Amino acid sequence: MISIKTPTDIKDIARGAVLLGTGGGGDPYIGELFLQSQLDKGNAPHIVPVDAVADDALVITIAGVGSPLVMLEYLVSDDTLLEILARMEKLMGRKVDALISAEIGGINSMFPLALSAMTGLPVLDGDGVGRAVPRTEMCTFSIYGCLATPGIAMDELGNSIVMETIDDLTAEAVLRAATSALGAHLFGAFYPMTGKQAKATAVRGTVTQTQDIGRCIRTARDGSGDVFTELLAYLNSREGRCAFVLFDGKIVDVTHETRDGWHWGRVTIVPLTDSNDVFTVDIQNEFTVARLNGRMVTVMPDLISILDRESAEPITAERLAYGQRVKVIGSSADPLLRTPKALAVMGPRKFNLDEDFIPIEKLV
Amino acid sequence: MISIKTPTDIKDIARGAVLLGTGGGGDPYIGELFLQSQLDKGNAPHIVPVDAVADDALVITIAGVGSPLVMLEYLVSDDTLLEILARMEKLMGRKVDALISAEIGGINSMFPLALSAMTGLPVLDGDGVGRAVPRTEMCTFSIYGCLATPGIAMDELGNSIVMETIDDLTAEAVLRAATSALGAHLFGAFYPMTGKQAKATAVRGTVTQTQDIGRCIRTARDGSGDVFTELLAYLNSREGRCAFVLFDGKIVDVTHETRDGWHWGRVTIVPLTDSNDVFTVDIQNEFTVARLNGRMVTVMPDLISILDRESAEPITAERLAYGQRVKVIGSSADPLLRTPKALAVMGPRKFNLDEDFIPIEKLV
Repeated sequence: MISIKTPTDIKDIARGAVLLGTGGGGDPYIGELFLQSQLDKGNAPHIVPVDAVADDALVITIAGVGSPLVMLEYLVSDDTLLEILARMEKLMGRKVDALISAEIGGINSMFPLALSAMTGLPVLDGDGVGRAVPRTEMCTFSIYGCLATPGIAMDELGNSIVMETIDDLTAEAVLRAATSALGAHLFGAFYPMTGKQAKATAVRGTVTQTQDIGRCIRTARDGSGDVFTELLAYLNSREGRCAFVLFDGKIVDVTHETRDGWHWGRVTIVPLTDSNDVFTVDIQNEFTVARLNGRMVTVMPDLISILDRESAEPITAERLAYGQRVKVIGSSADPLLRTPKALAVMGPRKFNLDEDFIPIEKLV
Repeated sequence: MISIKTPTDIKDIARGAVLLGTGGGGDPYIGELFLQSQLDKGNAPHIVPVDAVADDALVITIAGVGSPLVMLEYLVSDDTLLEILARMEKLMGRKVDALISAEIGGINSMFPLALSAMTGLPVLDGDGVGRAVPRTEMCTFSIYGCLATPGIAMDELGNSIVMETIDDLTAEAVLRAATSALGAHLFGAFYPMTGKQAKATAVRGTVTQTQDIGRCIRTARDGSGDVFTELLAYLNSREGRCAFVLFDGKIVDVTHETRDGWHWGRVTIVPLTDSNDVFTVDIQNEFTVARLNGRMVTVMPDLISILDRESAEPITAERLAYGQRVKVIGSSADPLLRTPKALAVMGPRKFNLDEDFIPIEKLV
């Protein structure tokens, strides 16, 4: 099983989490520091396969909520994560048996690992989406029958809310509103589920996959081959998944706006050659749709990642800037995200796009 | 002590609550029906003086939260109020000993009475403001040292939030945001306080006063005297308080807007004679400032009430309409609302007015 024991292990996971974060999910940097501080104390996270959890176990997510831009400016303390765990146990009237990442993309890959390191609780090797998403209800837990609440969110100042909602759209609305009211960043525990539910709904193997992606980029850099060739080879080696380089060029425009608790924007990329091609990627926390000369080439829930064209370092949306030379990679989402049920929750129409989902392999 | 046993008693309280609601606080009509349904079942509310509560008693407010416009369209069930009480007791880890109105103005005069009728719990003869106000932290409980949370808010569908905040401005921000997210109307229990705190902070005698106002208007109508003369005589008879007829005329313009969870607007009144006077009253849920030809004549936290000029029936802001013939009454707020500490929380500057508080008796 995957183990996380060295700074290099953490860096690998963080790098993979940015690629799977598809621009959003928050820069893992703060989470890296936090996880590293646990390793420094001799505490390592304990990761187990999703199938290892007992059917009657209590599994919860633990995650940061809010604008990735604000998240970068906040530090998290041991106390906050431990307090959330304690309150969730009080709320549920029993001990929590295992943690699972709400979304493996971005900073939320880190918090369950850190809490696992602190407490010894196992983290399941999976998550609710296999990428990052901008809304609470956009995850396989919700889509396949778990409820987001009862759940708890709190900030570092001691403000907290316990929520019980009748559906996950309502949970998202209340959580988003409360997050804005409390200054745009909270930590929370949601989706209390049984081990049986976790096994039935989780996207599997994504902690391992995240580390593998980061490791693949690192070792390819150190080797003699082409980094993107090796990365694509890894991404395409995953069963039932495919990936493509969508575009190679330089950023000529990027817009950013924080509104209603989300980060909105668009990045425009042109080739390094004198071609007239124009490539755009829209942002709603995550990269939602990529277009070549206006034609859709990858769309939610398939993944769009923007990487430095030399080092293959994945770049979060808020770090994109004029003049950066980048390659854009598109990859197919986990099959659990491509069912009609899932597309009704996180397909293109849910991002105000006037198009239906088309798999990347039919677009490229 | 005040007793509420007949439909006439309820009507009196409701009428007084609209006058003290100063345009806002929600039309008591739904609350009247609800309280009447309790009387019909043989349950009467039990009202006791503030001083009757034990120092170590647990006292809570119970109130509707949200836009008065939306409040009118919702019905409340016994179950919701009982559920809030049960959850508050669970949250506090002990039985609730008494209820108190958060604000006596408007519909929130009714819910503690109804819950008292249902459960037998006493309602203290007082409230947190002696009128209605648009924000959670604008009350003597908060101003003189109680905290709004831990508290709970829920809707009729089963959505709920438990809040713990470090100050009451934050409580207001979260509650307002959650209320908007959940469709603009919730019921909640806040300001858990000891009996000792209730005695130290409450505006006293306001349930009795509310009934007295309503009764005074009713009996004056039935008598041979002038209704306004008798009403003013009553209002001026209260110790340390004064009241004036500010204007007599007809409404020539009224604007309404629901925005950010509040009801905003302005009403313009001109004389029935051919004078060129123009009288305006600004609305932010409640009437916040009255001006005669642009000159301020009454301002928050002093009270502005608009009444039918024949029947002296008080009119809520949302029922104001072009052509209505009205008299405007201004009256001094309870002294607890006029201290520097109180004015820092609910004085004119907190309503975006560029003026300091001047007592009505110096303006008229």
